[in-house]
Amino acid sequence: MGTKPETGVNVIIGDNVRFGNHVIIKNNCIIEDNVVLGDNIYIDHNCIIRSDVSIASDSMIGANCIIGEYQMDFYADRLYHKHELKIGERALIRSGSVIYNGSEIGKNFQCGHHVTIRERTQIGDNVSIGTLSDIQGDCRLGNFVRLHSDVFIGKHSRIDDCVWIFPHAVFTNDPTPPSEHEFGAYIHSFAIIAANAILLPGVEIHTDALVGAGAVVTRDVDKYEVALGNPAKIKGDVRDIKNRESGERHYPWRYHFDRAMPWENYGFDHWYNELDDKMKTMLLGK
Amino acid sequence: MGTKPETGVNVIIGDNVRFGNHVIIKNNCIIEDNVVLGDNIYIDHNCIIRSDVSIASDSMIGANCIIGEYQMDFYADRLYHKHELKIGERALIRSGSVIYNGSEIGKNFQCGHHVTIRERTQIGDNVSIGTLSDIQGDCRLGNFVRLHSDVFIGKHSRIDDCVWIFPHAVFTNDPTPPSEHEFGAYIHSFAIIAANAILLPGVEIHTDALVGAGAVVTRDVDKYEVALGNPAKIKGDVRDIKNRESGERHYPWRYHFDRAMPWENYGFDHWYNELDDKMKTMLLGK
Amino acid sequence: MGTKPETGVNVIIGDNVRFGNHVIIKNNCIIEDNVVLGDNIYIDHNCIIRSDVSIASDSMIGANCIIGEYQMDFYADRLYHKHELKIGERALIRSGSVIYNGSEIGKNFQCGHHVTIRERTQIGDNVSIGTLSDIQGDCRLGNFVRLHSDVFIGKHSRIDDCVWIFPHAVFTNDPTPPSEHEFGAYIHSFAIIAANAILLPGVEIHTDALVGAGAVVTRDVDKYEVALGNPAKIKGDVRDIKNRESGERHYPWRYHFDRAMPWENYGFDHWYNELDDKMKTMLLGK
Repeated sequence: MGTKPETGVNVIIGDNVRFGNHVIIKNNCIIEDNVVLGDNIYIDHNCIIRSDVSIASDSMIGANCIIGEYQMDFYADRLYHKHELKIGERALIRSGSVIYNGSEIGKNFQCGHHVTIRERTQIGDNVSIGTLSDIQGDCRLGNFVRLHSDVFIGKHSRIDDCVWIFPHAVFTNDPTPPSEHEFGAYIHSFAIIAANAILLPGVEIHTDALVGAGAVVTRDVDKYEVALGNPAKIKGDVRDIKNRESGERHYPWRYHFDRAMPWENYGFDHWYNELDDKMKTMLLGK
Repeated sequence: MGTKPETGVNVIIGDNVRFGNHVIIKNNCIIEDNVVLGDNIYIDHNCIIRSDVSIASDSMIGANCIIGEYQMDFYADRLYHKHELKIGERALIRSGSVIYNGSEIGKNFQCGHHVTIRERTQIGDNVSIGTLSDIQGDCRLGNFVRLHSDVFIGKHSRIDDCVWIFPHAVFTNDPTPPSEHEFGAYIHSFAIIAANAILLPGVEIHTDALVGAGAVVTRDVDKYEVALGNPAKIKGDVRDIKNRESGERHYPWRYHFDRAMPWENYGFDHWYNELDDKMKTMLLGK
Repeated sequence: MGTKPETGVNVIIGDNVRFGNHVIIKNNCIIEDNVVLGDNIYIDHNCIIRSDVSIASDSMIGANCIIGEYQMDFYADRLYHKHELKIGERALIRSGSVIYNGSEIGKNFQCGHHVTIRERTQIGDNVSIGTLSDIQGDCRLGNFVRLHSDVFIGKHSRIDDCVWIFPHAVFTNDPTPPSEHEFGAYIHSFAIIAANAILLPGVEIHTDALVGAGAVVTRDVDKYEVALGNPAKIKGDVRDIKNRESGERHYPWRYHFDRAMPWENYGFDHWYNELDDKMKTMLLGK
């Protein structure tokens, strides 16, 4: 493994911690046991990295984060139960966030402040999660998913690639609360969920659909449909919506927006046509 | 009192702190003056326990919590004004939460991360409060109340026993904002407030009523009524709602759900019939 | 400069930090470089004050705050890029808040817990921001603005003097998300945005207008108008709304509410008539 990390004052390092090269650990951090830190990692003041976390190279952890937070089994008997948390290369986790152990996060992950991500959640590559968002666990997020601030994702939700979710959207999961029957929402690739929209349990939002701000979605929304209101009704087709500045049709948005997307400066079709068939189907269906 | 606590590094303990047996205080914690910690308490890294807090036995405080946070009077003159905070047995307060002094919390309390509970709030036994929820003070929560994530409870709200409140629900209190006249909402036992519902000031939600997701409730909701929409209208009777899996009627939910409820594995009627008359009336009216 | 500050244990102070008289810095605080602290400042446990922050006299910073948080340029190359953050006299920043560098905050600022304020935001005097609120940057807030809990203010929003915004209100900014075209909302003086209201991108809410709880505002709201519903419609005139207690007309609220307002105990007209013409126009138009 690498060289000795550069540490601030009052840094506590547990047993069997492995460091890559050029690791910086700032003041008052606590690194518990069996942690693996790749090369070129920066951990800011006051962080707690719990046992069995591995963080891949070139990542930064903001101050006051808790990475590898305990699940319920720890509180039940105060014995540490091993769960791993793997975070991919080039993560940027901003200050105050809490990420449970037992989840897995891909490459190029970014999140805001005071985010919570619970256990048994799979997050793909190039995902960004806004300040205060709360991912409740047992969720699957694909690649290039963008969540803005204070989004609530209930347990068992599934979000495919290139989905955008705006501030204060809420994904529920229990149709007859309280009960033991949970049905997560399922959002297909390229769908957009606008601010403060609410998805009722088990709804499916299909590719390229748009759920408007404040919509209360009680049933599935089909491809290209625009759902608005409380309860939400289908009020149009995304392909008819024009950009306020350019006056041109804006949807499917992949032809008009590419910042930080895999087709950036390349064109969606150009990029898509080079994918294999399985990937094409996953993104846009057959 | 008990034995000396087991402390990590850089733990600071004030004057007149009393410890039960088997207290564990992890690194960097600050325990201010006149704190009382019962037996078998675990306080994780970086916690601040302010003066005049008492935490009963078998409780766990997650990392980075502030327990006994200052009220406004401290900021006004920077002199400590004594207010007690009592937390009952077997509390589990997750990391990053802030609980003010001047409140009282019963037994078996649980909360998520980054919760705020302000002053002069009375919380009964077996209450659970989700991540990011914000209880503004001068509130009364009964027993077995469940709040999910990011619920906002305005000042002077009253919530009776066995009420469920789902993510992002908001309880307001000022009918003509801004004004000096605050009217808290009043939620009777067994009522359900679904995700992102808004209660306008002073509304009363009666026993077994269901406020649907995203409903904007401008007037009282009667027993068994289902309120939906913006503004909310009465759209049915809970007793007609069927569980999606079983196809059976689901409400009153106390006959179909018992996890962590006092009638768990026992049956609601069986449990209820053994209560005294006063308790029966409090729960279900006369 | 002043006397040596009174510091707790494990306090770390960087280079070129200047202190006024009677500065108190509690345990585990980290004061980075080139920080300027005025007289009579109190910084509670575990705070991080980053480089180039200046905090004016008589201010208090709650525990666990990060003042002068990094912008994206730091994460990009891990080199510190100088941005200043100035906070005016008598600030009270409650625990757990994160305020970015590159912003400016006036006198008598107050905020709740776990607040986030991002870069390039100008905040006037006498502003109060509630727990969990998230100001996304590039915003302008006037004087005597009040935001309650968990308000989301999208980039490029403008909020004039004496505006009230209630819990969970959301200001959006992208009319065709995702896109590169952002239009902030503009709220004129004395307007009121009630709980959980959503403002669509670029809407203008005029003086003395009232946006009701849960309203989804898709177009401008004119002076004195009351906007309610999803989508919001104009449903009346604020001047017809009566206070529930007094039975008297309550709006414009400046004639019926003065707590912490500049006309407190003085009368609005009395105060207003002494302003110069420019200020009068800014507040109430011509």
